[in-house]
Amino acid sequence: MGIDPGTQIMGYGIIAIKGKNFELIDLGSVRFKTADAPVLRLKQIFESTLGLVEKFLPDEMAVEAPFFGKNVQSMLKLGRAQGVIMAAALSKNIPVEEYSPRKVKQSITGKGGASKEQVYAMLERSFEQKIETRYLDASDALAVALCHHYQASRPNLAGGGAKTWDQFLRNNPNRKA
Amino acid sequence: MGIDPGTQIMGYGIIAIKGKNFELIDLGSVRFKTADAPVLRLKQIFESTLGLVEKFLPDEMAVEAPFFGKNVQSMLKLGRAQGVIMAAALSKNIPVEEYSPRKVKQSITGKGGASKEQVYAMLERSFEQKIETRYLDASDALAVALCHHYQASRPNLAGGGAKTWDQFLRNNPNRKA
Repeated sequence: MGIDPGTQIMGYGIIAIKGKNFELIDLGSVRFKTADAPVLRLKQIFESTLGLVEKFLPDEMAVEAPFFGKNVQSMLKLGRAQGVIMAAALSKNIPVEEYSPRKVKQSITGKGGASKEQVYAMLERSFEQKIETRYLDASDALAVALCHHYQASRPNLAGGGAKTWDQFLRNNPNRKA
Repeated sequence: MGIDPGTQIMGYGIIAIKGKNFELIDLGSVRFKTADAPVLRLKQIFESTLGLVEKFLPDEMAVEAPFFGKNVQSMLKLGRAQGVIMAAALSKNIPVEEYSPRKVKQSITGKGGASKEQVYAMLERSFEQKIETRYLDASDALAVALCHHYQASRPNLAGGGAKTWDQFLRNNPNRKA
């Protein structure tokens, strides 16, 4: 499961890995009500993520996480959104990995400075299908899921071997998430 | 339950409200291992908070939450810590309220610009006991718990009437958290 976190819209993309092959299971985005107070917004984000986790039962979660932003206020809000999203996975013992937007672009297209359109086009080629999405957040989420798969060229993980966090740690003793 | 979130140390303070009286139940702090990768650190924070929630079964959580900081990096980290702490409460349907450090100081001492020592001294007077704490984070957490009690001058809540989030919202239809 790939997630593109945001305080207004959260994108998600689910892929299945079978050996060296991967396929698209679902992608979409969730829009949060803007009128709510900050804490209630975080509650929406937490529950939406938990709902996705319970629906798709992913083995792992990959999150697109920028490390820099415009100002301290927006980074605090984004950090909170990232925190509750990761907590939703952690509460179900699902390992979480984060990737910078540049890393995702690099992984998908070979260029860290690729445009969103280039990433999108490469996703359609990689999944060999047209990718319908109303919001770009959903394809960003799909991109981070695919990036995670490319990075996770570890046989026991790529095959879906690690079902729990403990197992993940045992399989990857030196791994930095 | 009051929480002073941090990425290295998290302070907590538990108070019990009986009518117009309040008493100190416990306070302390949790230090997180600094060597861990960011996501593993967040997992520690999430699990520690969940442990406290399950131990003390608080009716409500109050979090000290600065809205400004030195730089975008530290605010992102702090936001993530706040996010997972709040998510731990939200996952147990515990209402979360946040207060700025200035609001906490104002509420405890009457002065938003009060020093940590002034807040500390006022806490000892308010609870009519010496407050032992190795870290100031713990007394900060106690301060935000007491601040929340002072703000929550709503009879049905101050008496511990709201046991669930839904009930909290019904009791406080116009409330902004």
